Amino acid sequence: MANIAMLGYGTVGSGVVELVCSNKDKFVKGMNVGLKLSKILVRDIEKYSGSKYRAKITDNFDEVMKADVDIVVEAMGGVYPSYDYVKRALESKKHVVTANKDLIAEHGAKLLDIANSNGVELRFEASVGGGIPILKSISDCLVGNNIRSVKAILNGTTNFILSKMNDEGMQYEDALKAAQELGFAEADPSSDVLGLDAARKLSILSTMAFQKKVDWKEINAIGINDIDSDDFRYAKGRGCSIKLLAISKMADESIYASVAPVMVRADSQLGGIHNEYNAVLVEGDAVGDVMFSGKGAGMMPTASAMFGDIADIIQNRKENPMMFDYEPADMQNLWEKESRWLLRVRSGSRIEVMKKLGDAFSNCSILAGEFGAEGDEVAAFVKAKDESQIDRCMDDLKGSIELKGFKKIMVLED
Amino acid sequence: MANIAMLGYGTVGSGVVELVCSNKDKFVKGMNVGLKLSKILVRDIEKYSGSKYRAKITDNFDEVMKADVDIVVEAMGGVYPSYDYVKRALESKKHVVTANKDLIAEHGAKLLDIANSNGVELRFEASVGGGIPILKSISDCLVGNNIRSVKAILNGTTNFILSKMNDEGMQYEDALKAAQELGFAEADPSSDVLGLDAARKLSILSTMAFQKKVDWKEINAIGINDIDSDDFRYAKGRGCSIKLLAISKMADESIYASVAPVMVRADSQLGGIHNEYNAVLVEGDAVGDVMFSGKGAGMMPTASAMFGDIADIIQNRKENPMMFDYEPADMQNLWEKESRWLLRVRSGSRIEVMKKLGDAFSNCSILAGEFGAEGDEVAAFVKAKDESQIDRCMDDLKGSIELKGFKKIMVLED
Repeated sequence: MANIAMLGYGTVGSGVVELVCSNKDKFVKGMNVGLKLSKILVRDIEKYSGSKYRAKITDNFDEVMKADVDIVVEAMGGVYPSYDYVKRALESKKHVVTANKDLIAEHGAKLLDIANSNGVELRFEASVGGGIPILKSISDCLVGNNIRSVKAILNGTTNFILSKMNDEGMQYEDALKAAQELGFAEADPSSDVLGLDAARKLSILSTMAFQKKVDWKEINAIGINDIDSDDFRYAKGRGCSIKLLAISKMADESIYASVAPVMVRADSQLGGIHNEYNAVLVEGDAVGDVMFSGKGAGMMPTASAMFGDIADIIQNRKENPMMFDYEPADMQNLWEKESRWLLRVRSGSRIEVMKKLGDAFSNCSILAGEFGAEGDEVAAFVKAKDESQIDRCMDDLKGSIELKGFKKIMVLED
Repeated sequence: MANIAMLGYGTVGSGVVELVCSNKDKFVKGMNVGLKLSKILVRDIEKYSGSKYRAKITDNFDEVMKADVDIVVEAMGGVYPSYDYVKRALESKKHVVTANKDLIAEHGAKLLDIANSNGVELRFEASVGGGIPILKSISDCLVGNNIRSVKAILNGTTNFILSKMNDEGMQYEDALKAAQELGFAEADPSSDVLGLDAARKLSILSTMAFQKKVDWKEINAIGINDIDSDDFRYAKGRGCSIKLLAISKMADESIYASVAPVMVRADSQLGGIHNEYNAVLVEGDAVGDVMFSGKGAGMMPTASAMFGDIADIIQNRKENPMMFDYEPADMQNLWEKESRWLLRVRSGSRIEVMKKLGDAFSNCSILAGEFGAEGDEVAAFVKAKDESQIDRCMDDLKGSIELKGFKKIMVLED
């Protein structure tokens, strides 16, 4: 019998309990292992006086540690006290399954170290892409590949907001409000809309894909809060949509990683990912492009991924311990490939800006007419050798005229 | 040290050898296991006199069995003599990795039984979807789900042909020829174009997804050889494209499974799978829809999947043996959901046919004008309660007039 303790009994925790209880005999036939729910740790025990599991519910972590527990499932979220509980569980030689990307992005390497030296597993499939089996696919199935790049939609809240803006012409504020009303966005949405949640997930994904430690704080994250309906108008004029893309890429000895709104072709695979769905497009040197998509969050999709981790542990399928023992990556924040970009520059002198853009980029189309900018703004699609060419051009402009505003959005054409 | 023997050294075999040799030290650090290429079995030894592996090459299977071998990798294809070799390898307690869908669809259950009773692994990730990690995702990661349905593009050759017909308006014969010239179709393409290859893969996928034995011979397979440019014209008129879809679905106690050309929305996920790519859309009760796509065949994508299996075996990650010990499924060949269908009926009396269709289906649009049928044909989109309603209508027609030809293509709207 494998005894499961739950830490946290909110949305995700309830989902895991449901799956554990409905699958409790699943492994008995082949392996003589059944599942048993042992303890549930909650903050406010009073709320659960009517629960059918009330005899298992406690608000004291020490009671969880004293009980007969093989696998601790952490679904509390946040870095503290999760970190302490997970650490103590691993040190007591209990396996841990978590969906907590904040915890793994912040302390994953250290906790994996503790797990390895105690001979137990720390699994976190649900921390990236919700129900999509992406981490295991990278670490196990694609292990014969050198991963070249990862391009992903890792945050369902922002993808929902951008979908509403694209499909229904909503303004950012209205789309955010709609997401909040439907429970896709939190009251304080900053971690999602500023791209920090996606950056944490990208750091986990990239660390596994490239086998170098990618620190989420070193990932340049640009959110969607500055995207407006004109950006979508320009994107549509090129057959594109705008997605908050998490991109990482091997570049010689360093790793490029960023989270930013990017234009992708509407008929491309990533362009076809709508609303709260997530997707990860992995490019391996042997397999080529492989794409994974599905619901990136929510009660049952997350519980599905956590149950997969529980099943692996019960069936003694271990991850390769060396797979996390990495050197920090040399990080790089500027896109080095030739690409097209949308530039939007607000200034006191449109003529000056147009002249400068025309001089700096051999391929520059100033947007005019139906798709043109208004007022003090110049909007243009330019082809730049790399991102630094754009930054240099803007620096030059700042030296000669007063800039009131500037925005750049890359067009991903492959 | 894990010793690998290759059976077959064609395209896929060479790819596996390349990955094994380039990854030979991959597992040394964490697990003290390196990879070593031990033997390569070929048919014609003379062809390899210049190979750098010539000392390992043999045309005698007994020599392979006598050598120091832990894992036998079968990349010969075909059912015989593969079956005998795989059986003997398993009985000699050697693990086997294969990409051979014909072998697994035909003898998978028996071979898995032999593997289990000898305490070794038989792995076949590459047999379905090439480099896409789909079987392991279903059996491990999604194990907490009851799988509701699988909708998949499992044959790259036919998807390439249909893409050419859709995108470039090619006729079937010309698109087939183009596929043959590019090496995507074999000289005798019948197994691909008649849907038999997809049916074999669907049987493997469905057996794992539904945990019932789905015999490929009981899957109704309709090929693409009867699809013409008018079908594409009608599809485009509804915003659709035509794909050879392998569909299986739990229906009460039975399993519906079929391979057939189906209309899918061009902007849907399956509609966005072009050329030689494959895709599998899995619907689980917990996870919802999860989609996987990538290259479904070819040297390195297939080798990537086989290397993943090799890595699992080396790292002692076992599949759950009970996962293949299944009762045969009750099979069902008729689609039971209300759906729209394109019907094309050729007869001596168009008026009679139109009248009959109008009477039989409350929702029936006869295609006329620009999108209309010509000559002796009536083409119509009808909404049918289930597939048997269509078959009954055609039986009725056959009783009253002479039918010269009949075709039905389902429209998948969700």
